[in-house]
Amino acid sequence: MNAPASRADDRLVHVPLGERAYDILIGSGMIGRAGVEINARLRGRRAAIITDEHVEPLYLAQLMDSLQTDGIEAVSLTLPAGEKTKSMDGLAAATDTVLAARIERNDAVIALGGGVVGDLAGFAAGIVRRGVRFIQIPTSLLAQVDSSVGGKTGINTRHGKNLLGVFHQPDLVLADTAVLDSLSPREFRAGYAEVVKYGLIDKPYFFRWLENNWKKVFEGGPERIEAIAISCQAKADVVVEDERETGRRALLNLGHTFGHALEAATEYDSSRLVHGEGVAIGMVLAHQFSARLNLASPDDAQRVAAHLSEVGLPTKISDIEGSLPPTQMLMDAIAQDKKVKSGKLTFILTRGIGQSFVADDVPASEVLRFLEEMR
Amino acid sequence: MNAPASRADDRLVHVPLGERAYDILIGSGMIGRAGVEINARLRGRRAAIITDEHVEPLYLAQLMDSLQTDGIEAVSLTLPAGEKTKSMDGLAAATDTVLAARIERNDAVIALGGGVVGDLAGFAAGIVRRGVRFIQIPTSLLAQVDSSVGGKTGINTRHGKNLLGVFHQPDLVLADTAVLDSLSPREFRAGYAEVVKYGLIDKPYFFRWLENNWKKVFEGGPERIEAIAISCQAKADVVVEDERETGRRALLNLGHTFGHALEAATEYDSSRLVHGEGVAIGMVLAHQFSARLNLASPDDAQRVAAHLSEVGLPTKISDIEGSLPPTQMLMDAIAQDKKVKSGKLTFILTRGIGQSFVADDVPASEVLRFLEEMR
Ligand SMILES: NC(=O)c1ccc[n+]([C@@H]2O[C@H](COP(=O)([O-])OP(=O)(O)OC[C@H]3O[C@@H](n4cnc5c(N)ncnc54)[C@H](O)[C@@H]3O)[C@@H](O)[C@H]2O)c1
Ligand SMILES: NC(=O)c1ccc[n+]([C@@H]2O[C@H](COP(=O)([O-])OP(=O)(O)OC[C@H]3O[C@@H](n4cnc5c(N)ncnc54)[C@H](O)[C@@H]3O)[C@@H](O)[C@H]2O)c1
Ligand SMILES: [Zn+2]
Ligand SMILES: [Zn+2]
Repeated sequence: MNAPASRADDRLVHVPLGERAYDILIGSGMIGRAGVEINARLRGRRAAIITDEHVEPLYLAQLMDSLQTDGIEAVSLTLPAGEKTKSMDGLAAATDTVLAARIERNDAVIALGGGVVGDLAGFAAGIVRRGVRFIQIPTSLLAQVDSSVGGKTGINTRHGKNLLGVFHQPDLVLADTAVLDSLSPREFRAGYAEVVKYGLIDKPYFFRWLENNWKKVFEGGPERIEAIAISCQAKADVVVEDERETGRRALLNLGHTFGHALEAATEYDSSRLVHGEGVAIGMVLAHQFSARLNLASPDDAQRVAAHLSEVGLPTKISDIEGSLPPTQMLMDAIAQDKKVKSGKLTFILTRGIGQSFVADDVPASEVLRFLEEMR
Repeated sequence: MNAPASRADDRLVHVPLGERAYDILIGSGMIGRAGVEINARLRGRRAAIITDEHVEPLYLAQLMDSLQTDGIEAVSLTLPAGEKTKSMDGLAAATDTVLAARIERNDAVIALGGGVVGDLAGFAAGIVRRGVRFIQIPTSLLAQVDSSVGGKTGINTRHGKNLLGVFHQPDLVLADTAVLDSLSPREFRAGYAEVVKYGLIDKPYFFRWLENNWKKVFEGGPERIEAIAISCQAKADVVVEDERETGRRALLNLGHTFGHALEAATEYDSSRLVHGEGVAIGMVLAHQFSARLNLASPDDAQRVAAHLSEVGLPTKISDIEGSLPPTQMLMDAIAQDKKVKSGKLTFILTRGIGQSFVADDVPASEVLRFLEEMR
């Protein structure tokens, strides 16, 4: 674990989904090896890269070089950075580029960027010719540990986040851990919230390891690769058990029902709240709500808040700058969220750190009352 | 076979696709029984109906009544009739209606209309919340025998037809054969081309039956139900063998590669050419091209042309009114069509009536030369 970041430190997580099985490669400098790794797995000779305006100047040339060296012809589309790109217009732009590049079924769409680019490009790959190959090259921590794995793709609508999309598994995920050095500290922290999430779902030892090692994860080096690999493996395990999210996969939504509502309440304005920050607050709320329902000890909620706050993440609704809409509007956002079955609210609750579970009969009135108090 | 159209004449075709299995019910007056049949199969209590401006005044009220009687709450969206509705804008309008109606996973999107409405509504159902229930109530002959069965959905783009879409199987198909009486004779004939297609693919006895019984199919009555049921069964058989169109399902494209190119050449202007007419010409061309390649007898092409022409369908490129673009542009449309593998042209050719097969190495130069001569 003390060798410098290099190929020797590369980690491979295999996602055994039968016909849709794929590899996740994690390591420093991975973008430079993209052409080789893609060639080893895909037949197509063409690619359309979707990226955003922040990532493009930093990493696109390097990726293009690597593809060209290995004989893959690529075009690229640079979209505005930020959540607003996950829209019908963004989708139309992405699919138009992919079609103009004459990408066929065995050719690939490549997402080079954070979760926004990944969700949008994956959706485009899923619908062009009813599905072409898809490669994720996630460049944000959140995308490396969460959104690039599992095949959920989508865009937002005026009715809510991620309400349109398809399941479309990638054929390969290349996580270059070195690119995270150019990520803003705020975005790195936001992604880290999702890493913590895996500990809180069902890996109490991983949560403890993070409490002790988080600084090294932030600094880079083998601990960063390790944390990302454990996170990818955790996500892959859940996805393999429940690819289409009919049951256990819902656990991955720990902190997300509250989190999404807060994102909606701040109108997806990333200067106020980014996804992972919403999740951080949401996870603390989920633990507090569980304590209130006498399912867990308030000490656990306290410990979660302490760790998240130590790394610099927000942990309560009042940490969000600016005014928020009435609580009833938060409830409406929750009700319109997709984790709703015939009117009843589905929540991920917990019996303690690493002991989360799916509760699908949580009364809306309890949630409303709890939220009123927490503001 | 001589009883009047009634429930006794109803036919059921089951499509055994495992988790995605569904029934196709075919009969006169089926829309009036929609609520009952849906209730017998689906848990959801809400529906969003997508229809078009021609079909709405004729059948929407009847469908709404039937749903209401059986306790299903429904909203509807009426879109302009015609191929142009299969667009990103149409998709945005459809998904917006479905989301505004708070359709959840077990609720349904209902397509009430021809193939345009079916393809669009199916696409919307496939992407709202990454997939909600979908019911096809096809009202054109083409939709009843072809587009409503098999799960292909999609929209057109400036790069070509059906280039964006998903596979999303319906949960139920209700084909009301009585509604075909209000279809224009031209649209009925166009749909009939697809009926003939099933005979030409691998049912020579069905083609012969159609040569003898086509008038009764056009007039209505048991022969119509019979022809539709045989067609649905034929399509279902192919779909079950090859749900995602990686092999045998391509047979369903008999006549379609040429047909799509002609549709593109007439800019999807339905006053000049509707889909089934393109398919009719395309099927004759496929038989002629096969004869030219010494695979089949020219007599077969002649017999196909004679039958299609007897019912009033166009059978040659010059039957299309107005001027057409240069042949090279037809070729470009063919190359951009989705049945292309790494540059080689895939065509459905035939060894005679009812003996079609997939050829995936047809040289583009041969096709170009053939098309030049056929104009
Ligand atoms: N599909 C899934 O399963 C899933 C799971 C979780 C989240 N998501 C989605 O992911 C999105 C959030 O992802 P995100 O946090 O990566 O957002 P993002 O894509 O907006 O990236 C955050 C910011 O960092 C920039 N950036 C990315 N990589 C960089 C790098 N290496 N150096 C410098 N800047 C960089 C981006 O340009 C952007 O400004 C949300 O839309 C969320 O819904 C999807
Ligand atoms: N998904 C598939 O597998 C598949 C297969 C074949 C064709 N298609 C698609 O289907 C479309 C063509 O379908 P179509 O021919 O039904 O076109 P359509 O939906 O445009 O219907 C043809 C016309 O008939 C009208 N109409 C429909 N039912 C009527 C009725 N009962 N009475 C009076 N008018 C009625 C419509 O309003 C329209 O004007 C094309 O877009 C084609 O790509 C899809
Ligand atoms: Zn998340
Ligand atoms: Zn057709």
